[in-house]
Amino acid sequence: MSEQLIIFDTTLRDGEQSPGASMTKDEKLRIARQLERLKVDVIEAGFAASSNGDFDCVQSIASIIKDSTICSLARANDRDIARAAEALKPANRARIHTFIATSPLHMEKKLRMSPDEVFEQAKMSVRFARNLVGDIEFSPEDGYRSDPDFLCRVIEAVIAEGATTINVPDTVGYAIPELYGQFILNLRERIPNSDKAIWSVHCHNDLGMAVANSLAGVKIGGARQVECTINGLGERAGNCSLEEVVMAVKTRRDYFGLDVNIDAQHIVAASRLVSQTTGFVVQPNKAVVGANAFAHASGIHQDGVLKARDTYEIMRAEDVGWSANKIVLGKLSGRNAFKQRLQELGVVMDSESEINAAFARFKDLADRKSEIFDEDILALVHMEGAEAQAEAYRFVSLSQSSETGEQPKASVVLIANGQEVRGESTGNGPVDASMKAIESQARSGAEMVLYAVNAISGSTESQGEVTVRLQMGGRVVNGVGADPDIVVASAKAYIAALNKLQNPTERVAAQG
Amino acid sequence: MSEQLIIFDTTLRDGEQSPGASMTKDEKLRIARQLERLKVDVIEAGFAASSNGDFDCVQSIASIIKDSTICSLARANDRDIARAAEALKPANRARIHTFIATSPLHMEKKLRMSPDEVFEQAKMSVRFARNLVGDIEFSPEDGYRSDPDFLCRVIEAVIAEGATTINVPDTVGYAIPELYGQFILNLRERIPNSDKAIWSVHCHNDLGMAVANSLAGVKIGGARQVECTINGLGERAGNCSLEEVVMAVKTRRDYFGLDVNIDAQHIVAASRLVSQTTGFVVQPNKAVVGANAFAHASGIHQDGVLKARDTYEIMRAEDVGWSANKIVLGKLSGRNAFKQRLQELGVVMDSESEINAAFARFKDLADRKSEIFDEDILALVHMEGAEAQAEAYRFVSLSQSSETGEQPKASVVLIANGQEVRGESTGNGPVDASMKAIESQARSGAEMVLYAVNAISGSTESQGEVTVRLQMGGRVVNGVGADPDIVVASAKAYIAALNKLQNPTERVAAQG
Repeated sequence: MSEQLIIFDTTLRDGEQSPGASMTKDEKLRIARQLERLKVDVIEAGFAASSNGDFDCVQSIASIIKDSTICSLARANDRDIARAAEALKPANRARIHTFIATSPLHMEKKLRMSPDEVFEQAKMSVRFARNLVGDIEFSPEDGYRSDPDFLCRVIEAVIAEGATTINVPDTVGYAIPELYGQFILNLRERIPNSDKAIWSVHCHNDLGMAVANSLAGVKIGGARQVECTINGLGERAGNCSLEEVVMAVKTRRDYFGLDVNIDAQHIVAASRLVSQTTGFVVQPNKAVVGANAFAHASGIHQDGVLKARDTYEIMRAEDVGWSANKIVLGKLSGRNAFKQRLQELGVVMDSESEINAAFARFKDLADRKSEIFDEDILALVHMEGAEAQAEAYRFVSLSQSSETGEQPKASVVLIANGQEVRGESTGNGPVDASMKAIESQARSGAEMVLYAVNAISGSTESQGEVTVRLQMGGRVVNGVGADPDIVVASAKAYIAALNKLQNPTERVAAQG
Repeated sequence: MSEQLIIFDTTLRDGEQSPGASMTKDEKLRIARQLERLKVDVIEAGFAASSNGDFDCVQSIASIIKDSTICSLARANDRDIARAAEALKPANRARIHTFIATSPLHMEKKLRMSPDEVFEQAKMSVRFARNLVGDIEFSPEDGYRSDPDFLCRVIEAVIAEGATTINVPDTVGYAIPELYGQFILNLRERIPNSDKAIWSVHCHNDLGMAVANSLAGVKIGGARQVECTINGLGERAGNCSLEEVVMAVKTRRDYFGLDVNIDAQHIVAASRLVSQTTGFVVQPNKAVVGANAFAHASGIHQDGVLKARDTYEIMRAEDVGWSANKIVLGKLSGRNAFKQRLQELGVVMDSESEINAAFARFKDLADRKSEIFDEDILALVHMEGAEAQAEAYRFVSLSQSSETGEQPKASVVLIANGQEVRGESTGNGPVDASMKAIESQARSGAEMVLYAVNAISGSTESQGEVTVRLQMGGRVVNGVGADPDIVVASAKAYIAALNKLQNPTERVAAQG
């Protein structure tokens, strides 16, 4: 029997820390359900002490997800840890993940603490946490750039206090596979009680090596947990990609000899859900989940693939869920087919009336376009979520026109704080005019920092899905809107972003 | 004095093999100039024997690029090699890169040749090439999955015949860093004349480890050339990213101890040029060149970065050319500022009249929007290029409108084969209506397989840049269009793609 590699997903915590990737509670719940469907072992659901909103998200995810362990991050202090334990109460299996920086640079410049103070705080925090929850993970932040002697001292102490998982982050993405693997191995060899904990790796991708570093930590270092995110989402260049690390271990089982629980068939759906939720596109040449990952262009390759599939393919597209996308729904599809597709896409609706409302929108869309793709369905469901929150502003109608030689113009009717108002404006293009028409009524003063149109199933007959990212007073929010008319989708996205700006959630954020 | 790591860029050859990434000659010349500006050591300009178009591209690049070695791919046969040598004649420094598959799977299923036949053909081809050009690179395709004994036999023979560079491709992206590094080292140790050639790595990214594998080939294996592409462009999940491998070697000079010639300040401009030319977006969490690669979101990180920059940063954004983007041109910018910016962006125009025409378009755009970003300038220059080719169809004017509750409609005037015609249509949205209006006149029957809007400088006041990918009879082409009005940009992109479909270039494509 071979050993198990634990997959710890931190899309909802470290992933969400990407500038502009913040998610609403509904969005997080949807992603958590998809992670459970993927059979992720541990879901890091958030950082409960960082804000009331995050506390609520962790608590809600702990309430509905039953198969995966639910984890909350906490700084190494009693208040953070108590908040995490509180939020995790409803969980079937709960884990507290506490951290403190151990590198000279971080201790001196960021924490302004001496090594002895850090040592003491790490120890006392794990002791405190251990009385609340049985499953404790400890991370020495910037561990890879820490002094090995000091690191050994800290880790030995926290294991003695009851830490069950030791995670060694390469916080700044500075590692090289063979060096990082050896670093983990040395720690494990030097620390007398190292066998009392499961070792874990957490790598950032600044030099493009997060996956290789993680796997070296596993193979060379002996780690048995990998921390990763869907699409490699995360601050700066992001984290280790779940899909890449999982498929590497499965494809090269001959070398790694480890089992992973992940049901890879749900990888593509998870990738899309995260991409559409955050507005972070997946580039076509992204491994495993990029649109081209299984496409062959050159004549020689096509010929090779036709003659023998494994000449150019080491994985099958179906294995990661690409083929599931091929059956297209349409006008004649019934409620059951629709409901089943929702399930396959990881969308769980709480009540029959919610399903009925979504199905009505589906039928409405099917009247306007002949083929409804998965992306359309996800967009349609997203709109439900987005509109449910729409308190301050609601889209009513839009008319716009442009003509060569004249200024594009738009007129938008919206409900603003309960009243129907009409905004009109010209602009550089019809989208710009529509945004300005809305802003003429909303007067938010927000700065638009991203306008992105997500490619939906390749054709302009599809719905367009637009992400608008607004920035105001240091806060960054995303709004998503979908409609077959790109100008309308843009207006809806702008309104969704404005609504998010109305719900201020201040928070302290976390370790990388 | 430390050793040199040779950077071999194959964006124009392997990168172009990505489905949908095919480039026109003008586009390739523009990218080649940017590669020269980056100080790439070797530019693989194409596969001369694969088509007359590719021959022409290799020849043109060999004529204008003087600082980098220019390389053409060639299968291991006399005809291919002779064509490559012919195309490379104008080059200051020329290299022929010949290849033949050596893995059992590829020899049996694809080539249908015995190992002895492959051995003989490899040897004779290098012998033939050596009489034409002094600089010969040999690649055993699917080398990493080849039998080491056979590989040693082939490589020893081709070095004896005069191959000066030996490149060992991981054609299917199956390798793991420590295994691949060891594989190269074993070959070098076993082959008696291995020191007579420079060893090279060529890794694909199917499991997300192309960069780490390449670097292990260098550090563990002793290779001194890395083959890579801008943005990791390439078939399936692409190749090793030039920007990542270069920045890893520079950032971890303490470990690698190697020099690279690359002038990293031009990396971001090169990334954008390739992304905009191919329509392949770069995801925000892409290392080095992603929009978020140097952005910090979380409170703790921002605080850390403010206190001491290196707490969370191992590279500086300026070092790879991010800052160069901050100075914005506008209405009052003169011709010299514009010309200088073109140069900084790697755009070289052949004549003063070309610059004047571009400057006139710049002024026209500056009248319509207050801040002109680098992306706007690149888009504007692209349009020049695209229109220069516009033979069959040319955009004249467009009017469109949409209103909630009514069908969006569009009317497009275009020159079709010398005649002004007007197409009208309704559609699911104004973009769809415009495409259908054009198609009503063009009647191409092409299938749209991608519609993408490239985010341009974050705001809807910018120009929108649209990529339309059409497929017809097995051919896939991209059209790019830019305009502040997204509907007009879409129409222009569709027309550009239609024009490309009019120029059929059949070609044999190549090794991965």
